[in-house]
Parts: sequence; C-alpha cells; structure tokens
Amino acid sequence: MVIVMAPGATQDDIESVVLLVASAGGEAFVSRGVSRTIIGLIGDVEQFAALNLRGLPGVADVVRVSTPYKLVSRDNHPERSTVTVRGVPIGPDTVTLIAGPCAVETPMQTLEAAEMAKTAGATLLRGGAFKPRTSPYAFQGLGEKGLRILADVREQTGLPIVTEVVDAHDVALVASYADMLQVGTRNAQNFALLQAVGAAGKPVMLKRGMTATIEEWLMAAEYIAQRGNLDIVLCERGIRTYETATRNTLDISAVPVVQRMSHLPVIVDPSHSGGRRDLVLPLTRSAIAVGADGVIIDVHPHPEEALCDGPQALVDGDLDELAMIMQEFPKLMSRTLATTPPGA
Amino acid sequence: MVIVMAPGATQDDIESVVLLVASAGGEAFVSRGVSRTIIGLIGDVEQFAALNLRGLPGVADVVRVSTPYKLVSRDNHPERSTVTVRGVPIGPDTVTLIAGPCAVETPMQTLEAAEMAKTAGATLLRGGAFKPRTSPYAFQGLGEKGLRILADVREQTGLPIVTEVVDAHDVALVASYADMLQVGTRNAQNFALLQAVGAAGKPVMLKRGMTATIEEWLMAAEYIAQRGNLDIVLCERGIRTYETATRNTLDISAVPVVQRMSHLPVIVDPSHSGGRRDLVLPLTRSAIAVGADGVIIDVHPHPEEALCDGPQALVDGDLDELAMIMQEFPKLMSRTLATTPPGA
Amino acid sequence: MVIVMAPGATQDDIESVVLLVASAGGEAFVSRGVSRTIIGLIGDVEQFAALNLRGLPGVADVVRVSTPYKLVSRDNHPERSTVTVRGVPIGPDTVTLIAGPCAVETPMQTLEAAEMAKTAGATLLRGGAFKPRTSPYAFQGLGEKGLRILADVREQTGLPIVTEVVDAHDVALVASYADMLQVGTRNAQNFALLQAVGAAGKPVMLKRGMTATIEEWLMAAEYIAQRGNLDIVLCERGIRTYETATRNTLDISAVPVVQRMSHLPVIVDPSHSGGRRDLVLPLTRSAIAVGADGVIIDVHPHPEEALCDGPQALVDGDLDELAMIMQEFPKLMSRTLATTPPGA
Amino acid sequence: MVIVMAPGATQDDIESVVLLVASAGGEAFVSRGVSRTIIGLIGDVEQFAALNLRGLPGVADVVRVSTPYKLVSRDNHPERSTVTVRGVPIGPDTVTLIAGPCAVETPMQTLEAAEMAKTAGATLLRGGAFKPRTSPYAFQGLGEKGLRILADVREQTGLPIVTEVVDAHDVALVASYADMLQVGTRNAQNFALLQAVGAAGKPVMLKRGMTATIEEWLMAAEYIAQRGNLDIVLCERGIRTYETATRNTLDISAVPVVQRMSHLPVIVDPSHSGGRRDLVLPLTRSAIAVGADGVIIDVHPHPEEALCDGPQALVDGDLDELAMIMQEFPKLMSRTLATTPPGA
Repeated sequence: MVIVMAPGATQDDIESVVLLVASAGGEAFVSRGVSRTIIGLIGDVEQFAALNLRGLPGVADVVRVSTPYKLVSRDNHPERSTVTVRGVPIGPDTVTLIAGPCAVETPMQTLEAAEMAKTAGATLLRGGAFKPRTSPYAFQGLGEKGLRILADVREQTGLPIVTEVVDAHDVALVASYADMLQVGTRNAQNFALLQAVGAAGKPVMLKRGMTATIEEWLMAAEYIAQRGNLDIVLCERGIRTYETATRNTLDISAVPVVQRMSHLPVIVDPSHSGGRRDLVLPLTRSAIAVGADGVIIDVHPHPEEALCDGPQALVDGDLDELAMIMQEFPKLMSRTLATTPPGA
Repeated sequence: MVIVMAPGATQDDIESVVLLVASAGGEAFVSRGVSRTIIGLIGDVEQFAALNLRGLPGVADVVRVSTPYKLVSRDNHPERSTVTVRGVPIGPDTVTLIAGPCAVETPMQTLEAAEMAKTAGATLLRGGAFKPRTSPYAFQGLGEKGLRILADVREQTGLPIVTEVVDAHDVALVASYADMLQVGTRNAQNFALLQAVGAAGKPVMLKRGMTATIEEWLMAAEYIAQRGNLDIVLCERGIRTYETATRNTLDISAVPVVQRMSHLPVIVDPSHSGGRRDLVLPLTRSAIAVGADGVIIDVHPHPEEALCDGPQALVDGDLDELAMIMQEFPKLMSRTLATTPPGA
Repeated sequence: MVIVMAPGATQDDIESVVLLVASAGGEAFVSRGVSRTIIGLIGDVEQFAALNLRGLPGVADVVRVSTPYKLVSRDNHPERSTVTVRGVPIGPDTVTLIAGPCAVETPMQTLEAAEMAKTAGATLLRGGAFKPRTSPYAFQGLGEKGLRILADVREQTGLPIVTEVVDAHDVALVASYADMLQVGTRNAQNFALLQAVGAAGKPVMLKRGMTATIEEWLMAAEYIAQRGNLDIVLCERGIRTYETATRNTLDISAVPVVQRMSHLPVIVDPSHSGGRRDLVLPLTRSAIAVGADGVIIDVHPHPEEALCDGPQALVDGDLDELAMIMQEFPKLMSRTLATTPPGA
Repeated sequence: MVIVMAPGATQDDIESVVLLVASAGGEAFVSRGVSRTIIGLIGDVEQFAALNLRGLPGVADVVRVSTPYKLVSRDNHPERSTVTVRGVPIGPDTVTLIAGPCAVETPMQTLEAAEMAKTAGATLLRGGAFKPRTSPYAFQGLGEKGLRILADVREQTGLPIVTEVVDAHDVALVASYADMLQVGTRNAQNFALLQAVGAAGKPVMLKRGMTATIEEWLMAAEYIAQRGNLDIVLCERGIRTYETATRNTLDISAVPVVQRMSHLPVIVDPSHSGGRRDLVLPLTRSAIAVGADGVIIDVHPHPEEALCDGPQALVDGDLDELAMIMQEFPKLMSRTLATTPPGA
C-alpha cells in the first residue's frame, strides 16, 4: 500500500501517518520527491484499511498494490482449476458446451431444446425456472414446477442441469434439483445470495454483473469462496456501455485477463451479450479462440413462441454449424470438447 | 407500439404481423415507405409484448411508444406526490435534509452525528445497520444492535430513522425499527427485496442502481408500487461512467427528467456520488437549485475513525455552511426547508 | 512516480530498475512488502517516462503521482484566473452569461437572438459559422459569410463574439472576426487545431471532449497553453454515458473538481448537455449553484425553423425566468453577474 | 420516419405536423392509440430532417427508421467489398496481416520490425511518422523523415505502407509516400481531415473513434466516401468503458454487426485495444474467428526502447505463434492468408 501525500502536506501530516501505521503494527517508508512525498506501507493490508488513511490531513491518495481477493486469486494458486459438474469438466483442457432454453416453459419445449443442445455437442443443460425480470409485468418463470421439468428432462437425456437461483432463501430448494447453481448478472452484488450459494454444496456459475469491473466480479466470487465453495465458474456475458447496436458489449478481453488473475474457469455467454441470434455463432467462435473454457448458449425449438429472449435463441437450422464449431475450434486451442463421463 | 420491417420484408411477412396482432385483439396500421414498411399497433401493449414480434420473419425493430411503468408514471397522476415520514414531508413544496452517519458504529458516534445533522437543519436521520460491501472482508454493519442504537437516538433527538435493508428476509425486522426503509444501489434489481419492501407498510427510499437507466429505476419503483406501496422516494446517487476523478458521476439532469416522468419525489445523495468531502456542499447547492426535493448527506463526528466511507463525511467545521445553504437555497426555489411537525 | 513490482520479480529485476533510474539522473527508494516490492522514484518525471519502465521485466505497474500538465495546473498557480474577452470578465468573482443561436443562419435571426441574449443578461454573443456535423448531409454553417453577420451584430448590439473554429487552417480567418475562439467537443484531441488556437492571440473556450477524462481535457488545455496562450476558459458540456434519456450526461461535479486542479475558469453548457429545452433552466441554476464561472446557452427567435439543434434553444417565453436566475443566483454565491465594461 | 406525439397533443398539433410534412412533399399517416397518436412519414428523409419536427408543439419523439449513411451502407450494395492496397487484398475471402512498429524511430528499428512482420505473414507494413499524442510533452513522430524511412523499408522488403495522417493539410504529403492512409481514433470526427483523405486517391483505414457509436463510425466513413473514395477499411480498436483492466474494451461484436450494415471490410487492432502484450495473440485469434477481414499488430525489435506504446508490442519470441495463428485460423473461416501479388 502506498500513501501519496498532497503537495502542501506538512511534516506533521507525514509523521501522523507514520505513527498511525506503526500503531497498527506496520512499517512506513517515507520518500520525498520534488513536489510530493510518498509513503510505502508494509504489513497487514486489512489492518491498514481500517485506519482510514485517506481521511487523514495531507493525504492525497492511497494506492493499493496487492489484490483484495485471496481465495480466488491465481497468486496463491498458480495452476488453473477444473470444476466438475456431475462428471462433466469445465477447465483448461476442455471446451464445455452448455445449452438449453432461456426459460423452462413446458415439458415438451424443454425436452426438445435439450435434444437440440445434445445434437450440437452440449453436455450440460441450461434452463431457467426462476427468472429475474426488469418489469414486474414480465414472465417470472415457473418456479419449482420448472425445476421438476428440468429434473425429468435430465432423466430422459442424461444432461446435468444448470439453473438460476434469484433469492437466498430459495437456494436449498433449487440446489435439491440442480447440478450447478447459476447466479445472474443482476445479483452480482446480492451478497446474501452469494453467501447462500457458497454454502449450498453445489458448483456455482457466477455471471459478471452488467457493470461490474473485473475486480468486483472476483470479489463476488470471493464471497462464495469464503463459505468454503471453490467450485466456481465465472461467466462473461457482456457489459453495459454507450453502444446500443448490441444489447451489451461482450468484453472478450476479460477472458484472458481474468484467467491471469484467477485460477477459476471462465466461460462466455454469446447469447445474452449480443441479444441477437445472428451474433451467437460468430461470438461462440470468438470465445473459444480467445481461450474460454466453455460457452453457454440459448436454443429454443420455437423461438417465435418463447416467453423470454426469443430473438437470441438458436434454432434447428443453426445446430449443424454450432456442432461443426464445437468439433473444429477446440482442437486449434489444443483442447477437446468436454464429454459426459463414461457410465454417467 | 411500432413495428419497423426490414428492407427485404415480404408481403407475407407483413401480413403475418397484421394477423398475429389481430389475433391478440389489436389493430395494425400498415404504412409503406420507399425502402421500408412500418406497422403501428393499437391495443393492449402487454398482450403485444407476449407475441414476441421481434422474433418474426422480416421484423427489424419494435419501438415501444408508451411507458412500461404505470403506477409510478406521471402520465396517469399529473400532480407530483409528497411522501410523509412520521410527519416529515418529502415533496414539491419543501426541501428535506436527511443526514447522519454512513454506518452506525457506537451509540455515542450515532448520537453525536444526529446532533450534527439536527444543527444543520436535518429532520430525518440516516444511518446504516446492514451494509452491503463489495469485499467480504469489509465491515458489514452491526445488524439488529445497530437498529436498537438508531431507535435510542430517535428517542433522544426526535429524528425519525431512514435505514437500509439488504435482504428480503430482514424486511420485517428492519421495518419494526425504521421509519423509512432504504434500498441501496446494489439492490436496485433485487426483485425479491423490492417486493418485500413493497409489502412492509413503511415509506421506501429507492436509490438508483449504479448503472441503471432512468427507465430501469422507475421499473424498480414499479415493483414496490405493485405491492400496494406508493410511498416511494427516488434517490439519485451517481452513475458509473468512464470518468474516475469522482467515485461516481452525479447525473444531476436525472432530477428534472424523472420529475417529468414520475410523480414520485426525487432527492440527491451528494456524499456517495462524489465520494469526496470537498464536493458535498457544492453538489448539495447544485441539487437544490436543479429542483431536488431533498438531499441525504453523510456526517460523522470523527471521520478519521469511520468504519465506512469516512473520506466523504462532513465534519463539524462544515455544518455552518450546510445550515446556511439549507436556509437560503430553498427560498430561491419557492420552497421551504422541511420541518418536524408540531407535537412530534 | 512509483514502480510496483510483480509478485515474482527477482532481485535482478529490482536492481535493473534502480540502475536504470540512476542512469537517468534519478533516485530510487526500494520498499519490500510481504508479497511485493515497490520502488519510489525521485527526479525528473519526463526523463523517467522516456525509460519505458513499464516494459521492464518484473514490473507490474507504474503509478504517476504528479500531474502531467504544468501550465494549466493550480499546483503552481494557486490563485484562480480571470479571462477577459473585450473587457468582459470570466472568472471567480462573476457569473458570465454567454448566449446566442447555435448556428448563424440569417442577419435577422442572429440579431434577434442577440437581442434576446442581451435581455436575459448576456454580455457575450455565441453563434456558429463553422459547424462540425456528424452527418455529411447536415447543414455545415455559413462560413465567412456567417462571421460577417456576427461582426455586424456585434456592431449593432455591443456584444463581443464567441465562435467556433473547426480547422487549424481557418484559425487566422476566424480570429480576425472573433473575440473568443471556441474549440468544440469533437476537436478536443485535434492537436493541430489546439496548437493553432494557442498561437492566435485570442482567448479560447475549450469544450470538454464528449468522452474526455478530466485529465485529457486539461492536457488539451496544456496544448493551447504551451503555445503561449493562457487565456483559456474550460466548458463542461456533458459526457457520453450509457444513459439515453438526455443527449449527454452533464458532469456537474467536474466543475469543482477542475477548479481544484486548474486555475482556469470553468463554465457550463446546459443546452448541449441535455439536448432538451425543458432542462436548460434547471441545469443553469444547478451550474451557478455548483460554482461555475459562467454558462453558455442557445437562444433562437424561431426554434422551429432552426437549422441546427432547434429543440434545445430557449425561446422568448423563457427569457424572463433566465433573467431572474441571472439576477438572483450569483448573489447567493457571493458573485455578481458579469457586465460589459463602461465605455465598451 | 415516425413521429410519436405526446399524450396531451391536441388535434391542432397533429394537423400541423401533417400539413408541414405535406408542404415538404411527403405523406403522413396518422394512427391513434389509446393514450398516444403516432404519425408515419413517407418521402425524403433529408427534407423531413430540415423541418425540425422534434421542435413542434405536441411532438414527443421522432424515430428514424432508415439509415443516414448511403454510400457505405450494405442496403444498396449487398456484396461485401474488397479493398486492394498495391495488390494486397483486404476483404471477405482473405485474412490480411498488417504489422510493424507503432512509431517509426530509426531506419534500423523500422527495417527490423518490417522483417519481423514479414516473418509472421504480414503483407502490409504499419508505422507512424505523425503521432497524435494526448500530452504535448510526448514524442510526436519524425514527420516527413519518418515517411522517407518507411519508403526505404518498402523498397527493401516489398511491403506496402500504411501510415497515419493527423492534419488535413498534410494529406498530400503523406499520400505521396503512403500506400494506405490511416485516420486515427482521435480524428474520427475531424471532418476536414476525413474530407481531405476522401479526395487523396489512396485507400484509407478508418479507425473507430474511441467512443464512437457504430453509426457515428459509419457516418465518418460516409464523409470519406462522399468525396468519391470508397476504398475504405474500417478498423475496430476498442472503445472507452468503465472497465480499467484493459486500456480500451475491444468491441468484438462490432465486427459482424458492421459487416451486416456496411459492405466495407472490417479489421481489428488487438494491440491498441488491450494495450497489453499478453492479450495480443488471444485477441488476434478471437478477431479472425469472429470473421474479421484482417488484423493490425504492433511489433518492435526492442520494445523496452520504444518511444511509443512499447508495452503492447509483440517481440521476436511471439512471432512463431503469430505465424502459426495466421496459417491455421483463416482456414477454419474458409479464407486464405492474404499474400503479395506475383510480380509485386
């Protein structure tokens, strides 16, 4: 941690900082420049944070030089992790395809979407039973009825289930059906929910907040990890910018950036980032090529009837090309398409 | 609602739209331009929304021309509302000062801060007992112990309490102490929480999401209103932009914009938007001058010891100037400083 | 300047930095933390910049602690400056109203707009003869013919002229008519233009780039100052954000922030920031209250016929309220409304 | 074009719109909804734009439904274009690698960088002789001396030259040396420069403005096209967002989005978007996989000595991997790596 003093800071101001740091068990190194003085701190950063150094007279800025997240950081865990969902790996050796309908609507629609997903190479089924919606007048999901449909479709297709949970108090219920819990973009700072999924004993897919910095995203993961759950997969799904041609701006650079900062796997959602069907396949190729550990894609048998985000779902006619991408692109990255474990 | 067809849309595409709209009980008016056709829809917008018109062949865009929020809209309620918190008004005739510590830390600190607030002209006391924090390693608030401190200080000073609730399942507890419930910026799309405060029978202060559009903010208010609670005060607290010189960018224009769109009162938080003590008074003046119905300000008797956001809290030396602003600026806006009701 | 070394930096990496800094005539202070080492540099920052320290092995980050602009910085010039335009002051003791049409269209329209401006209290006339337009198919201004109209209207009304220049090679021409040269938001990094106006011998109004950081804005001012011209007035005119309810987001906090960083006067453009007539008066009040040294406002006698930005121009019916604001609000800030010098 | 009337618009307001549109030779179709009326316009959009419809009483919004750019639009030119630079194609059948130093510093450095570029598969040489820099104290390029170095290196290596021009009045000079003129991100709305390169008779590479919307970017291209030059290549180079982990946020989705809107080729700059060497190769793979028609990459023989953007330049050790990417990835996209024409 480095304290930058203001140009007019007095000798007393500087000594106050040094004494305060010492009182917290740290050491302070003072360096005087032509117009400013800087003070380097050595010791326990958490304790320094409690000192409110920024509020002291004469202090212009406090620059933090080590990362505030620990459990999810790659600093202390250089090898990249693989998270396993009922035997299906998500990690550095594979590319995992997760696909399914945005929302579970009917048993038939869910089964058809799952079959589409499988055809394209998916080994995990996505599908929402609880939907967070901006408008209170929009379809909010089938709730537990939707979870039962997902469980039936898992039975019929063998695909483990990834599904969203939107309220801390639904975590136990959702976890009793799901193989992986999804935390959505609107809940990226719902700390009660993050802690609850951290304690649920199931792998978690954590979407990036719509306007979260990479650091905030990793801090959200740290909330989950702190409860003892390190089976976390991060999902880049586009950020909010001034550009309105796409629903969000897919931050493709975030994939390699986060993979350097954290040992957790990182996947990409090409459906929700662009919000347009015609962008899904180009962005899928782009995600695999940049080094993503997987992709999560909306498919729908009848998108014109979809109750949620129909315009971005892939349809039957897109599946051959998706399957081709899943066959060819992982190879170029020296990876394999993730498969269901034998006997699953 | 207006459907814009793509340049290559066929006659069949157009007829399909017209038929589908008719099947939902609406009427469609087709206008053919040189390169494009547009179709105007008349009827129930909610039903049209369910048709997934954007997913139809030949449809390029769907433009909504009426507002998706109803209860909080000014269209159907032209007069601006006043919300009353234990007799203290927040509305178009007054400027209300809400002040207090960011976080409740000790009985003494809370009482001292409340006295500071009162000196400056505040008639409502802010103070957080439950704090949502980006880092799991940061101070999270005193919880119910903090609520009891607030209740004691209300007893001693006569100031009604505004305090934050961060989890839907704490709403009953917090509402049993608070006079006004605050929903913070990170929970602006925590729909379970919005619905719970909507049912709690207490006025609500709804902060704008850090990156919420004005429409999303009003939709969040609609979630609360839908549960029967129209005692909602909106609070502009800065949005996330590329500029890093301030913690957030105070969107001062949002105040008059929202006052035209909604009948709800709108206040400003000059402390959290700038994140710097030296900006609090200028932004307070600016907020009153633009027409805000109130301001909410951090004060702290000993900011260098604050456990949360110390650098932005006003101190004793700032109170005279704040009091002067609260005396002089409302007059210029043909308003009065809100006062405690007689006998309260 | 502070060098933050990467966690895995070796002793050799550190020594290389120290030696390189010494070779440039600087001194390096090494402080070792638990997981990282930081190195504080003392000496000539420009020389350090040339060393490309960020590219050295083991270097994680380089943090600059002094400002890169010198001539416009308040560090070396603590007193805030007043810029005088033909005797009309813009500075800390006054509030200056600059008003007029967005674009010069006809002699009559310009004269009528100038009379409107004067009625409201303006002492400087704005009006564009050269207009930068996003579309090549939009009205681009009358050019020199427009400048002659402005000069005639100055003759008739006594109001000095503020007008935009968009090309470095028009600077001499525009300066031969104008009393103050305006550099628009799209040219905030047109360095050839900045240098040309710096050498033109006339005061300059420098609008903030639509997406310029405050630091970039001050760097643009430094380009002008470097050519010997310190008669620069900065103009905040809104920045681009994700919010689309207003054309731009007026960054009202930028006014006090810049006034602390630079000695130059800062004014606000409430017309172009909001892009809506109904916001102009609220934002004008807000700007004066936050401490702006002036405002620049579009007025038009017949906005429905305006060739440029008609929807945001004030009309006759708004002038009384504007005049009232210009009378009452400066007083509250212990300022006076800027007036034309006697005998002008 | 569609006019949305305000809820309180009167019959007179509506008739005024209809009459005004008729007076401009257009037709207006009125559709009355429950709470609002909309009016569809058919006729010449440019004429309607001049009517200032948004300023009329009762008008709430004006929605444009056809594109404001014509020459660069794909609507009227469905086949995607190929631009040829001294025989080297940039277009839909190939992937073109442009590489070289950010800035030309010395003959030796430029030659070495060009040899590096060629080794990796480049057929065009980039290199800046005129550099737009945020700080007036930073290296501004060698000017014409740099252009002569580039011409010599072209002689020695056979690589045609792509180089930036920053001032309209340098266009003739730069065009006398260059094979392709580059317009940089800071000049994306320098309309004098756009028009000058439009008249220069050389292909142009137009970088996206740092905060340009896709529509503004295409409008800038329209400025060039309007002067008769359709040999324009668009270059996505990252946009400004709130995220600071990368210098800019590469908007990878913009590539397929623009390719649908315009017939012009689109390439990607993975060096300047990320601003970090470790991101260049992942983003290069990503760009080719999303469908870009080429990439432009910084290489430098001694990046630690670079006078500009050293930290992002690829070095010798990266070339094998870059060459491998250029060999393998175009195939997967059914393209070939662009080559120098025989006999060139």
